Amino acid sequence: MKYSHLFGKTIKDVPKDTSLTSHKLLYQAGFIRESTAGRYYFLPLGQRVQQKIIKVVKEEMDRAGAQEIVAPILHPLHLWQETNRDKADFGLLKIKDRREMEFVLGGTAEEMLVDLVRKFQTSYKDLPFQLYQFASKFRDELRARGGLLRVREFIMKDGYSFHASENDFKKEYKKMSKTYTKIFERVGLETFMVAADNGDIGGEYAHEFQVKSGAGEDTIFYVPSKKLYFNKEIAPTMAAPFDQKGEEPRPMEDVVGKGIIGVEALAKFLNIPVEATTKTLLFETEKGDIVAAAVRGEYDIDETKLKRVIGCQSITLITPEKIKELTGAEVGYAGILNLPKHVKIFMDDSMKGRVNFEMGSNKTDIHVINVNFGRDLEMPERFYDFKETRAGDFYPETKEAYETFRGIEVGNIFQLGYHYSKKMKGATFIDEEGNEKPYYMGCYGIGIGRTLAAVVEINHDDRGIIWPDSIAPYQVHLIGITNNESKIRQEADEIYEKLQDAGIEVLYDDREDASIGNKFADADLIGIPVRLVVSKKTGDKIEWKKRTEKESELLNFDEVLGRIKKQG
Amino acid sequence: MKYSHLFGKTIKDVPKDTSLTSHKLLYQAGFIRESTAGRYYFLPLGQRVQQKIIKVVKEEMDRAGAQEIVAPILHPLHLWQETNRDKADFGLLKIKDRREMEFVLGGTAEEMLVDLVRKFQTSYKDLPFQLYQFASKFRDELRARGGLLRVREFIMKDGYSFHASENDFKKEYKKMSKTYTKIFERVGLETFMVAADNGDIGGEYAHEFQVKSGAGEDTIFYVPSKKLYFNKEIAPTMAAPFDQKGEEPRPMEDVVGKGIIGVEALAKFLNIPVEATTKTLLFETEKGDIVAAAVRGEYDIDETKLKRVIGCQSITLITPEKIKELTGAEVGYAGILNLPKHVKIFMDDSMKGRVNFEMGSNKTDIHVINVNFGRDLEMPERFYDFKETRAGDFYPETKEAYETFRGIEVGNIFQLGYHYSKKMKGATFIDEEGNEKPYYMGCYGIGIGRTLAAVVEINHDDRGIIWPDSIAPYQVHLIGITNNESKIRQEADEIYEKLQDAGIEVLYDDREDASIGNKFADADLIGIPVRLVVSKKTGDKIEWKKRTEKESELLNFDEVLGRIKKQG
Repeated sequence: MKYSHLFGKTIKDVPKDTSLTSHKLLYQAGFIRESTAGRYYFLPLGQRVQQKIIKVVKEEMDRAGAQEIVAPILHPLHLWQETNRDKADFGLLKIKDRREMEFVLGGTAEEMLVDLVRKFQTSYKDLPFQLYQFASKFRDELRARGGLLRVREFIMKDGYSFHASENDFKKEYKKMSKTYTKIFERVGLETFMVAADNGDIGGEYAHEFQVKSGAGEDTIFYVPSKKLYFNKEIAPTMAAPFDQKGEEPRPMEDVVGKGIIGVEALAKFLNIPVEATTKTLLFETEKGDIVAAAVRGEYDIDETKLKRVIGCQSITLITPEKIKELTGAEVGYAGILNLPKHVKIFMDDSMKGRVNFEMGSNKTDIHVINVNFGRDLEMPERFYDFKETRAGDFYPETKEAYETFRGIEVGNIFQLGYHYSKKMKGATFIDEEGNEKPYYMGCYGIGIGRTLAAVVEINHDDRGIIWPDSIAPYQVHLIGITNNESKIRQEADEIYEKLQDAGIEVLYDDREDASIGNKFADADLIGIPVRLVVSKKTGDKIEWKKRTEKESELLNFDEVLGRIKKQG
Repeated sequence: MKYSHLFGKTIKDVPKDTSLTSHKLLYQAGFIRESTAGRYYFLPLGQRVQQKIIKVVKEEMDRAGAQEIVAPILHPLHLWQETNRDKADFGLLKIKDRREMEFVLGGTAEEMLVDLVRKFQTSYKDLPFQLYQFASKFRDELRARGGLLRVREFIMKDGYSFHASENDFKKEYKKMSKTYTKIFERVGLETFMVAADNGDIGGEYAHEFQVKSGAGEDTIFYVPSKKLYFNKEIAPTMAAPFDQKGEEPRPMEDVVGKGIIGVEALAKFLNIPVEATTKTLLFETEKGDIVAAAVRGEYDIDETKLKRVIGCQSITLITPEKIKELTGAEVGYAGILNLPKHVKIFMDDSMKGRVNFEMGSNKTDIHVINVNFGRDLEMPERFYDFKETRAGDFYPETKEAYETFRGIEVGNIFQLGYHYSKKMKGATFIDEEGNEKPYYMGCYGIGIGRTLAAVVEINHDDRGIIWPDSIAPYQVHLIGITNNESKIRQEADEIYEKLQDAGIEVLYDDREDASIGNKFADADLIGIPVRLVVSKKTGDKIEWKKRTEKESELLNFDEVLGRIKKQG
């Protein structure tokens, strides 16, 4: 490709939102352009990289025995109604056609795949199999970040496996975890397999593939001695010990404390440690249950953990009006004393073992101190772990402090179990005894654009992108420095032709009106692994320089070709 | 691929709508399944073929210098408003997100591409270039046919070229016409370049690539001596001569003829030839103009031709109520006599040269006979050609009868001219003098699924599909006939492995529970070019049979490999 013909040349401007390095570099180097927030064009250079990533993913998925298909993008709404996902709390884009038929724009395709598979009579002999596709996916995100990390439209590789049993699924899960590690390695990414929350499907088979990067949105909790990685929402955590040195229970007491906001201020006002305060929040579940959840003052409540503890799909904080209706008090004085009988109470294990602690009284302006279990408050049957895990917290099993890092989630694998096959009629196979049974399912996703952006986050310097050989848009960036001498121009043109004839992918900067400095800066910004220069100075040789190295060498054509082929 | 593991095995059932052979065969052979009417899953076999077609298209587009990109599927509605296409009469699917932003699901992407290109400062030095993509396209068709010929969602290769001048565009157009012919040849289709209507953009550069097939929806008119092909809507046609042998004008006369429907009945009633009758229809244009269009009785009006003659975007027949308001008469008696002054009159050239002809009187129940130009009716400044072209009609220039055939439109190329660049602000380049000018554009489409279906319509027999080598899902269909003998099973397995190691794409029917007859029938139905059989009878050889031939041969492994590689 001649650079003079390339659509999407480099630019010095930066995009409006430059919080992400990958966004800035992919924009400046001419790989992407924003259409509307969160929706991107891939320009020729970007599309080449995207296609190469897709090729790697396809090769490894095929090697693992998965079969590529493609499903329509418009999913019939009635399929999503079969599984109640039409009411899901992530943004679903719905559309109605001229015939009043309703569709959902594909977010994920579980229902579509089950609907496809149930069109066939499946026998145990046909199982297991995995079907996957590369398809545009849509998310009605309220906020998109600039760049490719959080978008509203993107190509996802989504795979769905079908099994006769949970045990059979576990084999596929193991195979996929290896396949994913290999895929990301091949595109230049070291990934960590991080235990993740699996929503209302639950189960222990749910992992994210995370790339360590400050640009990531997730916080990963790492247990060094066990080599275990947890997403924050699922990281078990132990409350730091709160030593009360054999303190004796004191009489419970109401204290008037009007308008004191926050546990720190309250602890100061009451002259007690923050650890002696209690934070109580009141939620309503999707079924209409009212829940009170309490943690030791210095902790926050992790709603994902709490949902798992309650066993519900969604929780929302109840409104001040409803609090008043329920407890008679203004917002800010909730506790677990004196609550109506129908309120379900959950206590975090950070509450455990305390004496003489503080708590809201459910009376306006009043805090209670010296609350004690057994006397003022019934000891719960069990304590839970639903506090937000924080850097420095302890992993309960080994009692060691977590190490934390930020991560970009590039892929995920998780069990679907019978979640879809039991809800969708006819999602069954015939077992060896001739009985009809629902299949056990797994699901496997990779965000292609996000993977591309993660590669740039990890592989760049202050001059630009540094593409791994495997997914570079071109193998070689050839620069002619002609100073308008037709002989050198001719030499450079010939080398371009010869490289192309040898099957090498070349981006050839053939511009006559750009300075040497500009050409070199553009090559560094675009980030192709090898830079070749032909100039008066190089004589009958070619200057070879790798993007990752500082030094250049003079080589003849055959040496150049040999090296490219070796690393290709 | 082992057939026992393949998802989407053959089936004897036929789909609900079997009017199309390609639909029936692709369904039975396990290439596609319908999701909802007009939206299809591509199963593993179908997706392999689709990918191979895409690869051929990509290779030829790249060779022609076009550059692949990809644009979002959700187009901001405001872009379509810039060109007034949001009011287009083909079905547009619109959607609104949570932030109340409105989008159109991409039907074609002219606005998106112009919006992308105008984000860059384009100089005459950057021109020309062509950008193309493979993207899902959506049509809110009221009726979908079963199968892949008329669908609501499909992958289209759509390309858009940008030029400094019309002359430069013409070069690209010529190049694309060759590229398209080559693409279709490579996938096994002979195509005809058929002159087509270009809607309100107009111009002579608009052609469809049509495959001759009875399954097609288009009628193609062919001029043998000129090797010219016209789509019906644009085929010029000459009225057959109507010899009145020097008839003298007779006095114009009103005849009462109540409730006579159709020109044949009217001619009989009036005892005149049908050629002496006149058909007049009244239309309203999108601008609100009222138009009367008249043709000789035996012809019909082609609305596409008429729109082009009027120079408007849409016409609709006016209602009986409006006819009465306009002429005072019931529907069925319209003519071009006595019309209000504001009605614009257009006459087809079949009207020319007649004397003593019949016409509606615009009075209920009354027909006028012996109408004559110059005396009763002003001779128009010019006659037009807007009659529907029919088989047997004459091409005006050579006065030879058209040959006709049915065609499947698999691709099209057409000028966009300044249509989009003049409507969209900033769609300009800087010319050599430093002036800002709109670019001249062209557009080039290929329907991937329709191409696939056309290949099947053309290449099949009563046993199944016959894939061309270039896009067959696999190169070889290997059948093991083991009769449960483990030695033969082992031999067949080994040949499968050896073929795969040699880089050959093999579908291996390894089933132990299918009969020989079933295996052969499935191979014929699926249509892979070469069938190999390993059985007790074949000894240390392999039976080779091409799908297109009846005879088989016994070859050794190296001979088999050599032949496959030769035709690869």
